[in-house]
Amino acid sequence: MAKAKRIEGVLSPVVTPFKRDYSPDAERFVRHCRWLLKNGCAGLAVFGTNSEANSMSVAEKRQLLEALVAGGVPAAALMPGTGHCALSESVELTRAAVKLGCAGVLMLPPFYYKGVSDEGLYRNFAEIIERVGDDRLQLYLYHIPPVSQVPISLALIEKLIAKYPGIVAGVKDSSGEWPNTKAMLDNFGKNGFDVFAGSEVFLLDNMRNGGKGCITATGNVNPGPIDKLYRGWRSPQADRMQAEISATRKIVQKQPMIPALKATIAHFSNDPQWKTCRPPLVELSSSQEETLVRELKASSFSMPGLAA
Amino acid sequence: MAKAKRIEGVLSPVVTPFKRDYSPDAERFVRHCRWLLKNGCAGLAVFGTNSEANSMSVAEKRQLLEALVAGGVPAAALMPGTGHCALSESVELTRAAVKLGCAGVLMLPPFYYKGVSDEGLYRNFAEIIERVGDDRLQLYLYHIPPVSQVPISLALIEKLIAKYPGIVAGVKDSSGEWPNTKAMLDNFGKNGFDVFAGSEVFLLDNMRNGGKGCITATGNVNPGPIDKLYRGWRSPQADRMQAEISATRKIVQKQPMIPALKATIAHFSNDPQWKTCRPPLVELSSSQEETLVRELKASSFSMPGLAA
Repeated sequence: MAKAKRIEGVLSPVVTPFKRDYSPDAERFVRHCRWLLKNGCAGLAVFGTNSEANSMSVAEKRQLLEALVAGGVPAAALMPGTGHCALSESVELTRAAVKLGCAGVLMLPPFYYKGVSDEGLYRNFAEIIERVGDDRLQLYLYHIPPVSQVPISLALIEKLIAKYPGIVAGVKDSSGEWPNTKAMLDNFGKNGFDVFAGSEVFLLDNMRNGGKGCITATGNVNPGPIDKLYRGWRSPQADRMQAEISATRKIVQKQPMIPALKATIAHFSNDPQWKTCRPPLVELSSSQEETLVRELKASSFSMPGLAA
Repeated sequence: MAKAKRIEGVLSPVVTPFKRDYSPDAERFVRHCRWLLKNGCAGLAVFGTNSEANSMSVAEKRQLLEALVAGGVPAAALMPGTGHCALSESVELTRAAVKLGCAGVLMLPPFYYKGVSDEGLYRNFAEIIERVGDDRLQLYLYHIPPVSQVPISLALIEKLIAKYPGIVAGVKDSSGEWPNTKAMLDNFGKNGFDVFAGSEVFLLDNMRNGGKGCITATGNVNPGPIDKLYRGWRSPQADRMQAEISATRKIVQKQPMIPALKATIAHFSNDPQWKTCRPPLVELSSSQEETLVRELKASSFSMPGLAA
């Protein structure tokens, strides 16, 4: 089979709903994924940092992935996170994603050991690619040093692209440092290596420098306006649109990001169950939640068609 | 069934041998565990940081644990690491360990998200204890902020002991900061909370202040002399013995610790397969290995009866 068409545009690292007993809630998950695809997301980076993915087992993630496809979410729109600390787990979930026809996978480096060498990280990614052994694989590297504490260097990217062209397909840069994203674009962006900003704050800069979109937390709640800038980045209104979506992000990220996204969905869908986070994360305090909702309502923010 | 007798003394976080294809090597693992118990270890903290435990899946660890018990290693000597980022995985492995009769489990906090609250960590540990739901459980908290980047605070320990006395049984302090170990001893050491130093460098200090031993990387290669100090900490030779074992550790930790331990076992057992590390770790360079072996040989170091 041929490779899937590469996803470009706005991707949401979809937050994962949990039931009262902290088990993943496949029904609410499918519903939110479908809403996202209808409201501006070109793709879904399920099982990202904002998905509490590392708080779930491989088995739980496989079940959710199958539920999505069974629930009518096209695999061609999926870029699940499949990188784990354990090589064997990364292989298992990546293989499952490729078999389901996912457009790509977004891969964290193994993140338990700190200060590991590029050679060790190279072996990890190469071993996964070799074991999955499927030309349909499109692997996006996930650079998020503030959380993983294990960076993906330019030298490592270069070595991986040289060995696995076409398979190593791009990167999500969540370093929060534009010069790093710019260096990725300048070094690799012209050779079929797709650079996604890790926040919509850098979307316009990324598009102006040859990037392919963004994979952003707030894509969970504000996909429409972010997608509008993605489509209109060449328009005279682009800077104004950038300022607007950045202002919405600023409101959300005043609070702890993941519970804030969940509280936003809970409020605007009138479904308090959405607030549940799996330990070690906790939901917002009522005063944090009140501030968040008040500030969102005072802005132009909306989540059209979300309420059940 | 009653709780197992608590382990006291020297525990080794046993390094995990891998085959050429990076799969866990149960046979070499059982052999090394038996050697350790014969040569000074009171217990085996398998699946610790030095075991590359987080580089293995839960299924791989369950298989190794079953192989140990089947291979004649008493479950009463085992304190496997069972803490994962994913709540569901921590529950699965802890439950398996308790069912096998392990004396205890050594539990990392979930370590993907940084800066999490004590409330979130409390919920994680409490949820695991409740779900395992077995009075035989003896849980030792694993404090290793240099690697996990997620500390276990005194306030969190206090809250857990208050809710789960007898189940929350102790701690391994791998902070490398003696004042922190001392604070754990002073606050909780008299009430059935067993404090293990995370390095033999602090063994004598720990014993003089009411601690119960140490769980130390170099226990993999130097268990006899460390155990001798454990048994003889009240003797007039204690300070000299402490200086000797600290000197051996100094030689080993000049090199990256885990590959250095494996290279040491490989050399003294004449079994080069032992050198293999799972990505993202890599084996020592030949010059690192040469320095390590030369310096160990120039000291009083030996691994009696190890060679096959």
